[in-house]
Amino acid sequence: MVFASLDQFDNLVGALAATLTTIAFIPQAWMTWKSKRAEGVSLGMYSIFTSGVAMWLLYGVLICAWPVIIANVFTLALALFILVMKLRFG
Amino acid sequence: MVFASLDQFDNLVGALAATLTTIAFIPQAWMTWKSKRAEGVSLGMYSIFTSGVAMWLLYGVLICAWPVIIANVFTLALALFILVMKLRFG
Repeated sequence: MVFASLDQFDNLVGALAATLTTIAFIPQAWMTWKSKRAEGVSLGMYSIFTSGVAMWLLYGVLICAWPVIIANVFTLALALFILVMKLRFG
Repeated sequence: MVFASLDQFDNLVGALAATLTTIAFIPQAWMTWKSKRAEGVSLGMYSIFTSGVAMWLLYGVLICAWPVIIANVFTLALALFILVMKLRFG
């Protein structure tokens, strides 16, 4: 019973972590879209980060972990959106 | 033997994913530090993201997963550094 509770706590912390690191990219995407400026956004960062998130997604598929897949599909979409705006707005 | 190879491939993809999403923050930190400007960096993003990475770190500690702990210690340090520069340079 104690272990079951600890497992539930672990999963809650993991789900919260995944939600936070995914929604974090919404304000950046919104700010860049609204200002149509992306000088402050690092092309190097988003190129490497987008590749990394694609790898996390592949990892989730390989180990059949749905939370990893779901979180990284959304993060990949947001990171790609910011990367495209950086390439477009410079 | 096939499973062992697949497991090794999974771990390789996971390690590569963790490395990429961690080192991604180095160019952003460097760019912001060099330019001493942070208008293009979203305060909302880094506040939420830093909290999320702290949660991933806690999750790693809870499930005793060293790769999760190591990757998130570095990401947390870089995200905090960018957050502090955003608060300082505005």
